[in-house]
Amino acid sequence: MIVLGIDPGIATTGYGIVKERSDGMLLMICYGVIRTDPQTPYQNRLKEVHEGIFGLIEQYKPEAIAIEKLFFNKNVKTALSVAQARGVVILTAGLADLDFAEYTPIQVKESVACYGRADKQQVQQMVKVLLGLEEIPKPDDAADALALAICHLHSYKMRRFDLPQTIS
Amino acid sequence: MIVLGIDPGIATTGYGIVKERSDGMLLMICYGVIRTDPQTPYQNRLKEVHEGIFGLIEQYKPEAIAIEKLFFNKNVKTALSVAQARGVVILTAGLADLDFAEYTPIQVKESVACYGRADKQQVQQMVKVLLGLEEIPKPDDAADALALAICHLHSYKMRRFDLPQTIS
Repeated sequence: MIVLGIDPGIATTGYGIVKERSDGMLLMICYGVIRTDPQTPYQNRLKEVHEGIFGLIEQYKPEAIAIEKLFFNKNVKTALSVAQARGVVILTAGLADLDFAEYTPIQVKESVACYGRADKQQVQQMVKVLLGLEEIPKPDDAADALALAICHLHSYKMRRFDLPQTIS
Repeated sequence: MIVLGIDPGIATTGYGIVKERSDGMLLMICYGVIRTDPQTPYQNRLKEVHEGIFGLIEQYKPEAIAIEKLFFNKNVKTALSVAQARGVVILTAGLADLDFAEYTPIQVKESVACYGRADKQQVQQMVKVLLGLEEIPKPDDAADALALAICHLHSYKMRRFDLPQTIS
């Protein structure tokens, strides 16, 4: 299963694609950021975010998109701006007929670092270890996106175990 | 010039299309709402909003989309939800290569009812009068969208008057 994690924003959208092999090993496929220029008209910046994600979907054919759950930032202006980019990411999932799943920061930390109050550094270290990388992925938005993809794969695995067992 | 006014929301997105004739008269082309079912997966609801607006653009070929400026609602959850739908509307403008313009509620009231503190009823009455309609457009989201389209046409006209004059 291949999952695309996204950390949306109008200026910088982080992405990370992770594949779970049939033996359960996680493989990092790619990660990075989509950056948009503040000088570009706003509608074109959102278009660049949309087209960037669409390009990743076409190239790597993920089965789901995982993003961070809507949060109530102290900075309402930032939160609203992120929400607009988030709307674009969710729409892109819809247009590509992909599932999308949302996780709170605590769920991501619990899933990746086994501890809901882990700090950013611990989570990034665990992303590096779980994906067998030589370095911590940079920038932070890309590392966060990889963590979201890992969280979704872990959560998906757990849900499979939760399925009712039939005794034959 | 034809303008598409949009009042975005995940459950109900109001739209109103207004044309300014060459003699300056305003004509209502159409108005209505795009409703989405709360039972539908979120990404598909945003897709319905996007496809609904895209259909209007293809059919009526507006030159611009006008929406309400991002506002800081007391209810942050509602504001964030509106912001996600708003991101989809702005992206749709970008994908269709349309201009988009934003107006504050006060700008809309000043432009449509000549008074920034006009109440909803006064604005709706003025929408009816300016467009020569027999009834106040319903529901409110559609009336608000028509008011936004009118506001953009008025504002566009004013900007044309602001152009530097050359004396020949």
